[in-house]
Amino acid sequence: MFGQLGEDAKKKTVLVYGHLGRFLTNLVSKGIIVCNVQPAAKDDGWRTEPFTLIEKDGKLFGRGASDDKGPVLSWLHAIEMLQKHKIDIPVNVKFCFEAMEESGSLGLEELLTRNKDKFLAGVDFTCISDSYWLGTTKPCLTHGLRGICSFNVEVTGIQQDLHSGVFGGVVHEPLADLIWVMSQLTTVDNRIAIPGIYDDVAPMSEEEHKLYETIDFSVKEFRESVGAKKLPTEDKKTLLIRRWREPCLSIHGIEGAFSGTGEKTVIPSKVIGKFSIRIVPHMKPEKVNKMVIDYLKELWKKRGSPNTFTPTPGHDALPWLADTNDANFKAGARAMKIVHGVDPDYIREGCSIPITLTFQELTGKSVLLLPLGAADDMAHSQNEKMNKVNYVQGVKTLLTYLLELGKAH
Amino acid sequence: MFGQLGEDAKKKTVLVYGHLGRFLTNLVSKGIIVCNVQPAAKDDGWRTEPFTLIEKDGKLFGRGASDDKGPVLSWLHAIEMLQKHKIDIPVNVKFCFEAMEESGSLGLEELLTRNKDKFLAGVDFTCISDSYWLGTTKPCLTHGLRGICSFNVEVTGIQQDLHSGVFGGVVHEPLADLIWVMSQLTTVDNRIAIPGIYDDVAPMSEEEHKLYETIDFSVKEFRESVGAKKLPTEDKKTLLIRRWREPCLSIHGIEGAFSGTGEKTVIPSKVIGKFSIRIVPHMKPEKVNKMVIDYLKELWKKRGSPNTFTPTPGHDALPWLADTNDANFKAGARAMKIVHGVDPDYIREGCSIPITLTFQELTGKSVLLLPLGAADDMAHSQNEKMNKVNYVQGVKTLLTYLLELGKAH
Repeated sequence: MFGQLGEDAKKKTVLVYGHLGRFLTNLVSKGIIVCNVQPAAKDDGWRTEPFTLIEKDGKLFGRGASDDKGPVLSWLHAIEMLQKHKIDIPVNVKFCFEAMEESGSLGLEELLTRNKDKFLAGVDFTCISDSYWLGTTKPCLTHGLRGICSFNVEVTGIQQDLHSGVFGGVVHEPLADLIWVMSQLTTVDNRIAIPGIYDDVAPMSEEEHKLYETIDFSVKEFRESVGAKKLPTEDKKTLLIRRWREPCLSIHGIEGAFSGTGEKTVIPSKVIGKFSIRIVPHMKPEKVNKMVIDYLKELWKKRGSPNTFTPTPGHDALPWLADTNDANFKAGARAMKIVHGVDPDYIREGCSIPITLTFQELTGKSVLLLPLGAADDMAHSQNEKMNKVNYVQGVKTLLTYLLELGKAH
Repeated sequence: MFGQLGEDAKKKTVLVYGHLGRFLTNLVSKGIIVCNVQPAAKDDGWRTEPFTLIEKDGKLFGRGASDDKGPVLSWLHAIEMLQKHKIDIPVNVKFCFEAMEESGSLGLEELLTRNKDKFLAGVDFTCISDSYWLGTTKPCLTHGLRGICSFNVEVTGIQQDLHSGVFGGVVHEPLADLIWVMSQLTTVDNRIAIPGIYDDVAPMSEEEHKLYETIDFSVKEFRESVGAKKLPTEDKKTLLIRRWREPCLSIHGIEGAFSGTGEKTVIPSKVIGKFSIRIVPHMKPEKVNKMVIDYLKELWKKRGSPNTFTPTPGHDALPWLADTNDANFKAGARAMKIVHGVDPDYIREGCSIPITLTFQELTGKSVLLLPLGAADDMAHSQNEKMNKVNYVQGVKTLLTYLLELGKAH
């Protein structure tokens, strides 16, 4: 969805991006995934209906409250406030809101590429509010993102699910094979076991080392916020480095196996393991995909099962790193200083917003990630929320950012 | 559900058992499992609605068609036919039909125990039609069943599901721990990796060895019916021994991880792995449970994860073995010979029908397993069916069995 406010040739133009809408369950049941927020169901452990916005204890609960319907609404309220008070908006504003971000923004890159010389022509800055502060109190500007490489590992070998009593012991069970293969992907401390996977990680400069030393971050608070007894590392710098500028591998689940409550004495016939690797500069998706698929095939050879093994790469996205000294970042920093009274921290994010790179490449101009939500907003998880105070300060920050951008040369 | 037909003190009394009904999904959503057939949904890969009986190509498709609604209906039709033709039923018939067999027959054992000297008093024979022929053409009588020990392995360590981009690399992921633990349960050829698990398996007598050599069974047909490229053993005798009189371990699935289609970049916070071990004479559930839980705890120590690990035994059932030379088995064998024209094979089953042992213990009399369905009926699986010919011959076999039982001294 494209929109435009102002076409003054004397003004600079800022492009605003966000994602919104709701999970289209009717299409999902047909095997088509169309969503702009992550899936959610009350049964997953939500205390409130995930698709109804509930205000409680100064927090706004609901799927997408922080990722990313809340920030999109903040933009509309920021502009509404400027218009209401008859304050001239000193930049032209273009809007790009989509509904497929959580599914790899399917189709958007193609659409934007076709619009390189149309809708995107004349864009001087891009601003995206689709990430989070590092903590819960101090504002941040985000200048780096990890990319992602996703993988599906299918194992099959019997034509349909079998009764484990009648057939147990006399077939090679696909799920046992899959579980063994996936057990070989990481170490207990969540380091990736794939040989060479860390080889392309960019070395750290002296300046970067210093940045990590002064950054405002409490490991204890972080550990408590996730509810863990112990973390793989409790050193602040090492933890942030692992979170922002090193790859990691997470297993998400298995399709085709029994996943309900209770017991079902079944031998599943076709199971698909799902995992992804977060990638960082200078890792390349093609190389990572090849490395992982080669490793999986090697594992399968070692396993020696007669079942059928089909590892395939899923969607991928490049990592991103920006220059924090340009006019876009400076306007963002000033806006945060004005609204919050403190200079923001310059942070990175561990997650992917692939569209960031697309905008940078197609406009050839700076992209700023200006997060509004707090670290404990629980995007993608149960009981996602946005603090009301973050929402209100967010609206103020965005309108101040627009005013500050107008001063850029 | 108890029922009785005839109270003639001069006649012997046969007790007929079966399970029926349908899966109560409204209770399942509340975390309560109440079912008398295995769960089923069209999305699992059914070609027809699982809870609507469809006749196609001489087969009756539907969840429970063979396990065990079909056989229960056969009993009713057998008796209806005798009554219609005014043939005296030479035995009193008691009926015990239940709706919880697929959930470990919760409550039934207690109910029957309370009825040892009431409803069960005077029962001379028990007959259960809740298993399958060894192949698809030759009738069988079943004289042995494996028992079962079920296990749940819960791993947790973070308070809720997390975004794998934001938190990946800096938490110990419960699912990776669970997968590693479950990868250590079996070998590639589906032998159990738990030390000592085979120690209590009863040794084979010379006679038993001979029985396996002459039994009518095609490994090739079996392999083709499950759709496998290769089996862990292709030797007829070894295969039947593994299927009937050796323990095996099957992993059924994981609760709490992502299990849908598509991608969900989540770190699940609490996952429960589900597996079961089929047990045989002379294995004892208490000993197996302890052995398995000890092994799991040892694995967890080896893993060295700070997450929380809770392995628990689920429901269990003893194995069963009967004397094929008593009057009950002889009546069953004669009925099969009369209806099918051939002597039945004496086989065992790999699955559990715990109630078999309960009836044997409480009545102190013979229990016969008289299967009606074919080996390819796909109980517990997609597209469960019963052949129409098996159904019709089944009705005839049951009514002949009642007439033959009347001749027993």
